[in-house]
Amino acid sequence: MKLYSYFRSSASYRVRIALNLKGLDYEYVPIHLLRNGGEQLTPAYRELNPDGLVPTLVEGGAPLNQSLAILEYLEETHPEPPLLPREPLARAQVRAFALQIACEIHPINNLRVLRYLTSELGASEGAKNAWYRHWIQAGFASLEAQLVRGQHTGTFCYGDTPTFADLCLVPQVFNGQRFEIDIQHYPTLQRIYDAAMRLDAFANAAPAQQPDAE
Amino acid sequence: MKLYSYFRSSASYRVRIALNLKGLDYEYVPIHLLRNGGEQLTPAYRELNPDGLVPTLVEGGAPLNQSLAILEYLEETHPEPPLLPREPLARAQVRAFALQIACEIHPINNLRVLRYLTSELGASEGAKNAWYRHWIQAGFASLEAQLVRGQHTGTFCYGDTPTFADLCLVPQVFNGQRFEIDIQHYPTLQRIYDAAMRLDAFANAAPAQQPDAE
Repeated sequence: MKLYSYFRSSASYRVRIALNLKGLDYEYVPIHLLRNGGEQLTPAYRELNPDGLVPTLVEGGAPLNQSLAILEYLEETHPEPPLLPREPLARAQVRAFALQIACEIHPINNLRVLRYLTSELGASEGAKNAWYRHWIQAGFASLEAQLVRGQHTGTFCYGDTPTFADLCLVPQVFNGQRFEIDIQHYPTLQRIYDAAMRLDAFANAAPAQQPDAE
Repeated sequence: MKLYSYFRSSASYRVRIALNLKGLDYEYVPIHLLRNGGEQLTPAYRELNPDGLVPTLVEGGAPLNQSLAILEYLEETHPEPPLLPREPLARAQVRAFALQIACEIHPINNLRVLRYLTSELGASEGAKNAWYRHWIQAGFASLEAQLVRGQHTGTFCYGDTPTFADLCLVPQVFNGQRFEIDIQHYPTLQRIYDAAMRLDAFANAAPAQQPDAE
């Protein structure tokens, strides 16, 4: 199995955690998003990932794009340990939490969007950083409130074992810290982040531990 | 079953199609995103949907948020007719196509993002519309290329029956048309859109057919 990844990409980070939790060996293929005009934009890489995004997972058959689709694939083909609860309603709640990060926070702060802000709209560095923080803060406030009142909040976002929700939350917290979001304002997110990072599967998936880390 | 929906919301539109395809009756509860300062932002609605987004589906238990999580829930609880193929690799490809729309196009053009562009970054109406069209055009070009070379492209995005991919594509094409995207530049997207709209399940889910249509 090959994972095309960039150490700082939070979508790649999600998949690295899943692979580690499920005990799956993989070859790490670094795709540098900033070097050489963006290695994700080369024709060769776009054969694997037409949108020019990381990650891509290749396991025998066709290349797989989109981190949440890859997580579902891994869950279906390597079901142990499960990263979704068993009941449909619970699964929907975990998926909705993950999608709140994967749809409502992360894409708005993606590299190509930030570039458009500065190059096309003339946003200053300060305005760009304020944009970045705005969407994380709005999202984190909502996620924190949901976890505080959630009846299933445990050691992790849903219960006492990691789910897709935690696989999306941890990389997003890492991103927030890079942009000086004070995670202490979100005590439940911080508690869950800390619990996750005590597990080897999460700690070994962190950007600093990747072969392409700088 | 109750669906909190706004007629023009493409995330709501996806769920309406799924409910129709699966033959499920539901009560339509309109949430007007522009009236009364935004009905999605009231404390009462935020009890159901903390992010203040549509749609929300309520079926007995806890309210369900995030359209793709709702689609997965409906697929698990009402499996006929299936809206995902059977094999894990095929399911991943369909989900990835859906996520390319749901993550990489739609959220960047969401109402609250457009409002930030104009209110915080001072973008003109023209710049805002150019932004909107940019993300659709980039996404549609990629989706069109994928369908052209896809080995499983049929009457619909994957095979000859509708899947999650079509449920995301059709509302996004509708959005594009509102912002004067010429769908003729993407002949495969147009062909699939036209095929879908010949089915009652899609036609009856269209914005103009909803009780809150204007």
